[in-house]
Amino acid sequence: MKTAVVIGTGLVGTSVALALSRHGVLVLLEDRDQDAVRTAASLGAGTLLAPEGAGQPADLAVLAVPPAHVASALAEAQRRGLARCYTDVCSVKGGPVADAVARGLDTASYIGGHPLAGREKSGPLAARADLFEGRPWVLTPTADTGREALNRALELVSLCGSVPVVMDPAEHDRAVALISHAPHLVSALMAARLEYATEDAARIAGQGVRDVTRIAAGDPELWLEILSANAGAVADVLEEYAGDLGAVIADLRAIADKGAALAPEAGTGLVGQLRRGNSGVARIPGKHGAPRAAYAAVPVVIGDAPGELARLFAAAGAAGVNIEDLTIEHSPGQQVGLVTLYVDPDAAPGLSERLAERGWTVQA
Amino acid sequence: MKTAVVIGTGLVGTSVALALSRHGVLVLLEDRDQDAVRTAASLGAGTLLAPEGAGQPADLAVLAVPPAHVASALAEAQRRGLARCYTDVCSVKGGPVADAVARGLDTASYIGGHPLAGREKSGPLAARADLFEGRPWVLTPTADTGREALNRALELVSLCGSVPVVMDPAEHDRAVALISHAPHLVSALMAARLEYATEDAARIAGQGVRDVTRIAAGDPELWLEILSANAGAVADVLEEYAGDLGAVIADLRAIADKGAALAPEAGTGLVGQLRRGNSGVARIPGKHGAPRAAYAAVPVVIGDAPGELARLFAAAGAAGVNIEDLTIEHSPGQQVGLVTLYVDPDAAPGLSERLAERGWTVQA
Repeated sequence: MKTAVVIGTGLVGTSVALALSRHGVLVLLEDRDQDAVRTAASLGAGTLLAPEGAGQPADLAVLAVPPAHVASALAEAQRRGLARCYTDVCSVKGGPVADAVARGLDTASYIGGHPLAGREKSGPLAARADLFEGRPWVLTPTADTGREALNRALELVSLCGSVPVVMDPAEHDRAVALISHAPHLVSALMAARLEYATEDAARIAGQGVRDVTRIAAGDPELWLEILSANAGAVADVLEEYAGDLGAVIADLRAIADKGAALAPEAGTGLVGQLRRGNSGVARIPGKHGAPRAAYAAVPVVIGDAPGELARLFAAAGAAGVNIEDLTIEHSPGQQVGLVTLYVDPDAAPGLSERLAERGWTVQA
Repeated sequence: MKTAVVIGTGLVGTSVALALSRHGVLVLLEDRDQDAVRTAASLGAGTLLAPEGAGQPADLAVLAVPPAHVASALAEAQRRGLARCYTDVCSVKGGPVADAVARGLDTASYIGGHPLAGREKSGPLAARADLFEGRPWVLTPTADTGREALNRALELVSLCGSVPVVMDPAEHDRAVALISHAPHLVSALMAARLEYATEDAARIAGQGVRDVTRIAAGDPELWLEILSANAGAVADVLEEYAGDLGAVIADLRAIADKGAALAPEAGTGLVGQLRRGNSGVARIPGKHGAPRAAYAAVPVVIGDAPGELARLFAAAGAAGVNIEDLTIEHSPGQQVGLVTLYVDPDAAPGLSERLAERGWTVQA
């Protein structure tokens, strides 16, 4: 890839442009917002595209615009002959390609894309050339998609340091509804109920509720846009969730009001959902695709001083043990915390011993 | 406190006994399961209580039995005159004290308690003297509770290294329903839906869904017991949650089927819940009671080798910066990850600079 056009210089568009420019690709930028495009150019993301176009079509044009504007941006770019191939980077894939077909656009030169990366901040100033490094980047070719468009998009993904994952557009939309959009709302609704928490209830909150509600801190306007573009698929997941929830509530009421006792081996309702929860967690890959269940937990008590974590990790490193994951648990009003290290099960006993030898309080 | 009796030598009872023994308290142990009580004694948790009792009443008896058995254990212990004061350590507080009153027991010498600590494992072998260190320990005195019982319980909490939090029994039950029991089910139900995730959907799962579903990996039988003992309060929270969920689904359907567009400033339904989610998250304290929003995020790209985290934390320590919290994000199939450090906002720019100087890829 020698030349590229990036239409839309927000967070994602500017980050793509920075990554391509860093690899020596000549990038031309355009945005309706002149401030945004000038900011992106000043960051080294590329140079401004002239209104009359680039003269020669670029190797690839990246349409970094919201889902509802992808098809119109594609129509406009194809009319101007901006590039030989086109892709987009928005979070929903079925709508844009259906719009493009409905408008009779050239869909051989177009392939949908969705890099699974983002930040809390937005706009070109928040952009980073390494935003996509190591993240999955879904590509959604259809029967119409030409080989050149697929390969240009794969090159883009590679230049951005991402891992390409090929999916059908509708399959992608169902997948993100299930693994991103529905979890966001499930979390937001739980967090919303915490508005009613008493001060004492908030004091005794532990790591569990913090984890469940972390993503509920996301920007409401951004999420409204994301959820609106995939509303049907998200509603499908949440309706099934609501059905399961109703069965659980009915079981709880039966226990509370009639003193019913549920057999731990029951397959449905409350007990069934607790069990299915176990299986569902196991389906989500942990670090590097390995199941999380494969790690052993080593809980260590640490003090609250600069360098305490460094000392702990240095001790783990000295023991030759790689830390796969970790959590920090906080103590209300005390200068002490609990760090749980997740490591290879074979390495856990040795690590616990070595840490204890060095004076750490290991709870495992 | 010079003498204590611990009835029930599972994980929590044995951990309490270990903590008291370590502080020189003479602890007498009892459990229906002779293997469990012998194991606890062999770990140094105390000595076996003779069937005829201790002769002299102990300063405090800790009833470490399930919620449904607290009142009968209290009746039995008082009949035998085992101690001058009594407390329990189970996860629900309204039921046991109501049972005790209904049985006409002496409630002046009894105070309910709930240490908010636990492990994935159970039984005396999983016990640790430091299990409760730095954790909140709720005490639920009623109008009947005598001063001596309150002070003995406070001494117990202090000897276990915990932070006492005094609450009304019903208030406690509503609080744990909201901040522990309902979030567990919300998480389990989301995880249960992931059973239907395609392999590709699981591959593109990010840190968000992992956080939301982490606690769903908990033991279903243990959670069935916990939820059954607080079923009414949990059902109350979940019914309100289900109502909010229904409104969100209706909004999503209106968008999907009728192309409705929601104003970002709307106060109810989808938009309202996203906004309330923000406020709810802010109510949960971060580390040491400080709001999490007070920290600045410093995202750093790291390689997957032993010692990488140690090098990173050593660099942070050398910069004199205390890491308040952190998350690790995983990359599918790549030997690289993203660690986000949460630090004092004043310290963040300096830390980013120092890390960049030392060759780290800092994304903030």
